[in-house]
Amino acid sequence: MSEIGKRLAQLPADEIREIIYRPQLTQVDGDDFKAMLDLNKAHLVMLAECGLIDAATARQLAQALLKMSVTGLDVQPDAGAVDTLLEDAYFAFETRLAAVAGTHAAGTLHLARSRNDIGATLDRMRARSYALRIAEGLLEVRSQCVTRAFDYTELILPGYTHLQPAQPISFAYYLSGYETALERDSQRLVTAAAGMDECALGVAALAGSGFAIDRRRTAQLLGFEGITRHGLDTVASRDFMLELLSAVNLLGVTWSRIAQDFHVFVSDEFAVLELPDRVSGISSIMPQKKNPIALEFLKAQSARITGALMGSITAVRGTHFSVSLDAMREGLADGWAVLKNTPAHLSLLRLVMESVAPRAQALEDRCNRNFSTATDLADALVRHCGLSFREAHHIVGGAVRLALQLGRDATGIDAALLDQAAQSEIGKPLGLPDALIAQCRDARQALLQRTTPGGAAPSAVLETLRESQRRLQQTREQLAARRQTLAQADAALESALQAVAANGR
Amino acid sequence: MSEIGKRLAQLPADEIREIIYRPQLTQVDGDDFKAMLDLNKAHLVMLAECGLIDAATARQLAQALLKMSVTGLDVQPDAGAVDTLLEDAYFAFETRLAAVAGTHAAGTLHLARSRNDIGATLDRMRARSYALRIAEGLLEVRSQCVTRAFDYTELILPGYTHLQPAQPISFAYYLSGYETALERDSQRLVTAAAGMDECALGVAALAGSGFAIDRRRTAQLLGFEGITRHGLDTVASRDFMLELLSAVNLLGVTWSRIAQDFHVFVSDEFAVLELPDRVSGISSIMPQKKNPIALEFLKAQSARITGALMGSITAVRGTHFSVSLDAMREGLADGWAVLKNTPAHLSLLRLVMESVAPRAQALEDRCNRNFSTATDLADALVRHCGLSFREAHHIVGGAVRLALQLGRDATGIDAALLDQAAQSEIGKPLGLPDALIAQCRDARQALLQRTTPGGAAPSAVLETLRESQRRLQQTREQLAARRQTLAQADAALESALQAVAANGR
Amino acid sequence: MSEIGKRLAQLPADEIREIIYRPQLTQVDGDDFKAMLDLNKAHLVMLAECGLIDAATARQLAQALLKMSVTGLDVQPDAGAVDTLLEDAYFAFETRLAAVAGTHAAGTLHLARSRNDIGATLDRMRARSYALRIAEGLLEVRSQCVTRAFDYTELILPGYTHLQPAQPISFAYYLSGYETALERDSQRLVTAAAGMDECALGVAALAGSGFAIDRRRTAQLLGFEGITRHGLDTVASRDFMLELLSAVNLLGVTWSRIAQDFHVFVSDEFAVLELPDRVSGISSIMPQKKNPIALEFLKAQSARITGALMGSITAVRGTHFSVSLDAMREGLADGWAVLKNTPAHLSLLRLVMESVAPRAQALEDRCNRNFSTATDLADALVRHCGLSFREAHHIVGGAVRLALQLGRDATGIDAALLDQAAQSEIGKPLGLPDALIAQCRDARQALLQRTTPGGAAPSAVLETLRESQRRLQQTREQLAARRQTLAQADAALESALQAVAANGR
Amino acid sequence: MSEIGKRLAQLPADEIREIIYRPQLTQVDGDDFKAMLDLNKAHLVMLAECGLIDAATARQLAQALLKMSVTGLDVQPDAGAVDTLLEDAYFAFETRLAAVAGTHAAGTLHLARSRNDIGATLDRMRARSYALRIAEGLLEVRSQCVTRAFDYTELILPGYTHLQPAQPISFAYYLSGYETALERDSQRLVTAAAGMDECALGVAALAGSGFAIDRRRTAQLLGFEGITRHGLDTVASRDFMLELLSAVNLLGVTWSRIAQDFHVFVSDEFAVLELPDRVSGISSIMPQKKNPIALEFLKAQSARITGALMGSITAVRGTHFSVSLDAMREGLADGWAVLKNTPAHLSLLRLVMESVAPRAQALEDRCNRNFSTATDLADALVRHCGLSFREAHHIVGGAVRLALQLGRDATGIDAALLDQAAQSEIGKPLGLPDALIAQCRDARQALLQRTTPGGAAPSAVLETLRESQRRLQQTREQLAARRQTLAQADAALESALQAVAANGR
Repeated sequence: MSEIGKRLAQLPADEIREIIYRPQLTQVDGDDFKAMLDLNKAHLVMLAECGLIDAATARQLAQALLKMSVTGLDVQPDAGAVDTLLEDAYFAFETRLAAVAGTHAAGTLHLARSRNDIGATLDRMRARSYALRIAEGLLEVRSQCVTRAFDYTELILPGYTHLQPAQPISFAYYLSGYETALERDSQRLVTAAAGMDECALGVAALAGSGFAIDRRRTAQLLGFEGITRHGLDTVASRDFMLELLSAVNLLGVTWSRIAQDFHVFVSDEFAVLELPDRVSGISSIMPQKKNPIALEFLKAQSARITGALMGSITAVRGTHFSVSLDAMREGLADGWAVLKNTPAHLSLLRLVMESVAPRAQALEDRCNRNFSTATDLADALVRHCGLSFREAHHIVGGAVRLALQLGRDATGIDAALLDQAAQSEIGKPLGLPDALIAQCRDARQALLQRTTPGGAAPSAVLETLRESQRRLQQTREQLAARRQTLAQADAALESALQAVAANGR
Repeated sequence: MSEIGKRLAQLPADEIREIIYRPQLTQVDGDDFKAMLDLNKAHLVMLAECGLIDAATARQLAQALLKMSVTGLDVQPDAGAVDTLLEDAYFAFETRLAAVAGTHAAGTLHLARSRNDIGATLDRMRARSYALRIAEGLLEVRSQCVTRAFDYTELILPGYTHLQPAQPISFAYYLSGYETALERDSQRLVTAAAGMDECALGVAALAGSGFAIDRRRTAQLLGFEGITRHGLDTVASRDFMLELLSAVNLLGVTWSRIAQDFHVFVSDEFAVLELPDRVSGISSIMPQKKNPIALEFLKAQSARITGALMGSITAVRGTHFSVSLDAMREGLADGWAVLKNTPAHLSLLRLVMESVAPRAQALEDRCNRNFSTATDLADALVRHCGLSFREAHHIVGGAVRLALQLGRDATGIDAALLDQAAQSEIGKPLGLPDALIAQCRDARQALLQRTTPGGAAPSAVLETLRESQRRLQQTREQLAARRQTLAQADAALESALQAVAANGR
Repeated sequence: MSEIGKRLAQLPADEIREIIYRPQLTQVDGDDFKAMLDLNKAHLVMLAECGLIDAATARQLAQALLKMSVTGLDVQPDAGAVDTLLEDAYFAFETRLAAVAGTHAAGTLHLARSRNDIGATLDRMRARSYALRIAEGLLEVRSQCVTRAFDYTELILPGYTHLQPAQPISFAYYLSGYETALERDSQRLVTAAAGMDECALGVAALAGSGFAIDRRRTAQLLGFEGITRHGLDTVASRDFMLELLSAVNLLGVTWSRIAQDFHVFVSDEFAVLELPDRVSGISSIMPQKKNPIALEFLKAQSARITGALMGSITAVRGTHFSVSLDAMREGLADGWAVLKNTPAHLSLLRLVMESVAPRAQALEDRCNRNFSTATDLADALVRHCGLSFREAHHIVGGAVRLALQLGRDATGIDAALLDQAAQSEIGKPLGLPDALIAQCRDARQALLQRTTPGGAAPSAVLETLRESQRRLQQTREQLAARRQTLAQADAALESALQAVAANGR
Repeated sequence: MSEIGKRLAQLPADEIREIIYRPQLTQVDGDDFKAMLDLNKAHLVMLAECGLIDAATARQLAQALLKMSVTGLDVQPDAGAVDTLLEDAYFAFETRLAAVAGTHAAGTLHLARSRNDIGATLDRMRARSYALRIAEGLLEVRSQCVTRAFDYTELILPGYTHLQPAQPISFAYYLSGYETALERDSQRLVTAAAGMDECALGVAALAGSGFAIDRRRTAQLLGFEGITRHGLDTVASRDFMLELLSAVNLLGVTWSRIAQDFHVFVSDEFAVLELPDRVSGISSIMPQKKNPIALEFLKAQSARITGALMGSITAVRGTHFSVSLDAMREGLADGWAVLKNTPAHLSLLRLVMESVAPRAQALEDRCNRNFSTATDLADALVRHCGLSFREAHHIVGGAVRLALQLGRDATGIDAALLDQAAQSEIGKPLGLPDALIAQCRDARQALLQRTTPGGAAPSAVLETLRESQRRLQQTREQLAARRQTLAQADAALESALQAVAANGR
């Protein structure tokens, strides 16, 4: 009684049609339809080339598909007119194809395939497209970090651990640290994209087909590197998407921590960074407010990624190693939405990285006062007084305590105070000159010292940034090559289809 | 430079407008607008009654709000025309109100309030509405379970543990077990709804207002039981929504396990239950398939609830105890979507419960053969042979093993076999008559035995079902009362607004 | 071949014994053993009173259980000597009982029950014990908040939204806000505890028992309010534990946000709060560091709760509505660990609340300068100049912008500046006297204004605190009553057992 | 006042010591201590070789470390004697080193490093060790799948989709499908392991060191491929562990689905597979039960992985991009536990794969009867009757419906029935001979047809298995090489340390 099958004796219940089927017909976007069209083109070309379909029908279908490419990418006209008996995008497509090419021809094209391998292929096409867009968006963020960092290798600000001043660093070091983390996120996207580069078509329902199809040809026409290795695994598994989502989840964690840092740093009290008015929001009641809503928005989106990953994982976990609605489609719905939306969120992150500015003036002075050069003083005690680091650490720790008790800031640590601490710790004064102590306490001096690889000194940061530039360039080329591969496959598919339209194979 | 504030010197960046603001303007549905309108009506009536607004302006505003009630519930005409400078639904509303009532009057209405308390109030109105709909949907599911169970108190099928046949039960017992679990889910919804029944309006930004407003009057006009107790907590907290979502999450776990059971039970191999064709799907390639897609869909939705809860929790966890986009709105977006969609999913569950049928014929015979009365045999050994339960358990366990080795099913356990097992376990035969053994092995006899409270015997199940009916009736009355309270508040609000429209207070 | 069953013909494989069984035997703590012992006592008393066990055996068992109460609460001596063939705590108990009371007597006690209903009962006893301890721990935290708040109703500090200064509040208001949120968490614990107050014993494997047991008597002896309503549901469901865990999860979210606030507030830059040295950690390298590790620890534990909830939910979701290892025990393991550890974490939170102190001196001055009274100025414009709130908001917003452009802080907003902003916004000056403006800008004045219910004014806060005291007292009494009920049941059980030990019933 | 720092004026509070510090001192296992020892050895060798430590002290320390290698791997004697003032494993180690080498020497070793880079390095050593063990455990599982599959290429059983019989497959195809999925999981582990192969030592607190250390030398001595690129990123990031955990999470999803399949397949009703008694559990009450507890246990562990991942993610998400307890240690605690326990769980999975057996006899006959060759019949209609696949699908679907209405199984589909269906669908009979139809309905024939790459035919499966063997061998070699690299670094470290013990450099 169904329009697209004769096994069942009843039409689907209204709840089935409205709750399960309708969204499958209305939530297909233009990209999805383009993928469905391409998939059908490639399958047709392969069937025709393999002689599995007669030339006349092949021509008929090729011409119909060419026509459908022109007439637009909507699976169905509008939501109001949706025929929910069609169940999903595939049957809607077959029905629309039948309207153009005739019922017999349209029915011929479903040879040696199933919605299972079609769905697995479309999901791979979709995932690779999203993966590419996300990787491109992330490239722009990293690029901003690196470009801007070059301007700030000597701009000093406090480096924090536990949100307490730890040691002076530069804003360039800071940005470069983020970029280094984001580079790993980028690498994970690349790995995930490579893992999904296999075409699923031809495994049919789960066990392969009895027709002599050429799976590698179809794969080639759709721009895939190869074919999937096992039919049951192919239709049962969407781990390529879960791997991508896991990678995006870790990316979201990175950006959320950056946003968390910035959220505190743009506060009145920290006043380390500033976002321009155009990247801020206001209050409806408090006239003075300038709120860092972009940062909060980014934090929220990262949480939504985690939620979508959790939902997808728990959906798939609870299924058999096989095809089912929950393992394939419905259970992954929020995950797909996240992947689709992430490029926009990365453009917001790029805006933040591009527009955030350090409030330069007072930060270096703050570093001179907030005891964040205490490690350097301890290092000096090791160098000049023959102390072990632990002894030096104890003396300086004691000196800081004394200074605070006296209401002094770090500039108040002088020879006398250090000697007092030393006396109490090792039973004798140190006798260091005040000038040396002052030098050790100087934030700029401290920064210049950190020249070990990966350190905060301008020289070390420049080295790190140059390596980042090399890696950025590498990513840029990888992504461009990927785009080109897809474009070439697209062209090859069109030309093969034209041949079939003309000659039937 | 913003249309709605003068603090910032730049217009928001395009990314801010398109990515953050646009969705806030386009994703508001009719219910949301109705709530915004009601909230403004109530605030106006309160201000007017408290004399905090002059009579002329009050009349003007009241008439404008009445007019807006009639002209439709869209926040803005259509997505194309959205002015993203308006930021969100509140400013869009104020702008639209200004168009009807004039700028001065519209600007007057924002006295003694903020988007913070407005948002907190609207979220509570939304949550209570969703909670009510979900509770009503669940009521129908429970009702189906109970109603149908009365027909099946004597229809025997295997009860499973670890998905292995355990003891014979009835289909009524089965349905009643589900309903008992769902009743607790229902109870959690009621508790969550009670917890959110406090109006947030009047705490303004976070610290309360300096104007002499009457918070309880506003609460009353909006159908709330009382007012929130603390301003900072009010604007910082959405735990009422997270509690509701946690309750719905547990509900989803229950329904997912039911769906999991049914998924296995409708299999060819189990053949315990059957779903009609109209609640099934087909395959595009395999002509024989009849797939339980409704069950898979329900499982998927339960996973999405868990994901949305995880996302919401992780978003809110990572915020200050204060107002922020991530704690209030963006971070909860998927949670709200889940709450909105759950009533439809419950109607699908109701359809399943209403249409599923036991495949009666062979099930009782299966229970007679699959050893699921072994416990009854052991109980008999305790009763008739003076054995401890553990001794009896050992003998029957040994007998089952012997039977399987002989290729027999449970009907093959006779006196000789039992005696052989007893000999090996306790060194002597039992000497029970075959007739007694046969009686103990009988699934129907076993069922009739289970008369303890909460047991599977028909008499016990009828008792349980009658208690369920009482509880169902109680829930039904609670929900009806809730609907009535809201309707009465609605009427009172309209009449108070009419008074203001006429008299300015 | 198993020691405790004869159905299987092979001993369990080493992996089964070491990986599955060993932890079940070694991870049982003293509380768990006490519960097992009590459960067996209660079951014995009931069986004896119902005449389902002969007097001699009953006496024998009662005396054995009394003996075991004395000889200590370890399920087995030490991990080295564990006999993994015993599978789990129940069989270990039965084996140990057999050693004391004899095999026949011990085997008799398993009449009319199963590990399924035993496990369900023990889990309920464990959950109610944890729930009580958590509620008691939370009570101490809330109590600290309220007690300390009374000292700080006039100590002014900035209230933040979006981590930007919003409006002046008091430290008392702040603490009271937290306590209000925690009170709801407390309420959820109470609700969850009530939901689990039903004894599971007597439903046996899943279908009830054929012996004429008295379930209500057993329940009473174990301090339960009533009995579970349905056998299958009883053995299949642990939602009482998931509900408790969900409530604890929301509690963790609240405390994590408090910790997040404090983490920022104890920073050098915010300098709003201070934690004493004894609640801080140090650095191994940086001698000056004083790190807020308690806050970070609390945040981490809240995340672990969420993880444990998610793990438990996803485990149970993927099971049948029935007994299985994943739905009952293994899948909930991390959840149980969280419930066990939470009281300690609450004592750490109490320590924080008890020892944190505001850095009073500079905070009020900061509020006078950071524009956080701008709303009060706008309110004044409404009161004195006949402007709508929106107009006033625009003028003050413009004035803040002008002040910032001139490098002034909030004290630099005077009549001239306001008039300049008014001129640009409404085309005319306001002509307000400087004295009035200065008064509106004063943080203390602003605080005193917020007298609406739930507001920040000292009078309103005192009102809120008094209500909090009432609620605290109520919780305190509830928890004490709960402890007493359990103690009374304990005493009744002992006395009933003594009777059985003496008379066999 | 602390034993290990002088900054703080008070001893830590009891709660800090008991709740935060004690577990850090008692939960360190032998592997952790070995890593700490190796790390200190490598740091010493590097300092000595760089001349940053005088020869006498270097000798002293080297001899002490050699001594500590011999005297055992406990960080502290026993839990009772733990000195909680030591805070964590590092300070406990330094204290113990001081006892052996003297306080001055021990204090010297902390030059140019911090607990931050030590912790980052230890975590990487730990993660790479766990990653390797997990990969080795997974290798054994895959190996079992492949080895056993070779025996079953012709053993037919039903292939399911939606848990409904779909098409006949072989048990070899089945096992091979799992292995193909597990191979991707294996690949993800390898990728994750490669990403963490960088040594963190030398970035000190966060900004690098001012001493002229040789980071690459330390890395080499610890068996790392290279060094981390950026100090702040190094101490702030644990994404290498989260990436590994994400990979293990997906592995857990795969094994959970396998366990889910097997759970159903070992049921009485499906009777597709059987697990031996030694891999099963029993019931305490139901003598006949044989429960698949290993499968349930595996499902539970997979859920716990997901929970641990979610907990870890939500902990890290809520932190600054910097060092903190929640981002580094406490928040990841459950994640580390999962990584530690996974190898054991994989050995259980291996046991399952090694011992599960198909219940061969009846399965092929079931495939002949359960309509799972309907696709083959439709394919035949395409081949022999010039129909489109859709037309053929409709006719066969109709025939199945007719057969069911007549109470027939698949063997009841004959020419007459097909013609009846064809008549109703395309208005004419097909006229196919019964012999051809019977051949199409034959499960074995259907299996032999599926020869496309990745298909179920024995020939295709053998091809897939051979490719799997190649990949297995590749993984085996990779893992062996990894073990060898670590062993070589171990040897080099010992020899370098001996040199320092002798010569001071």
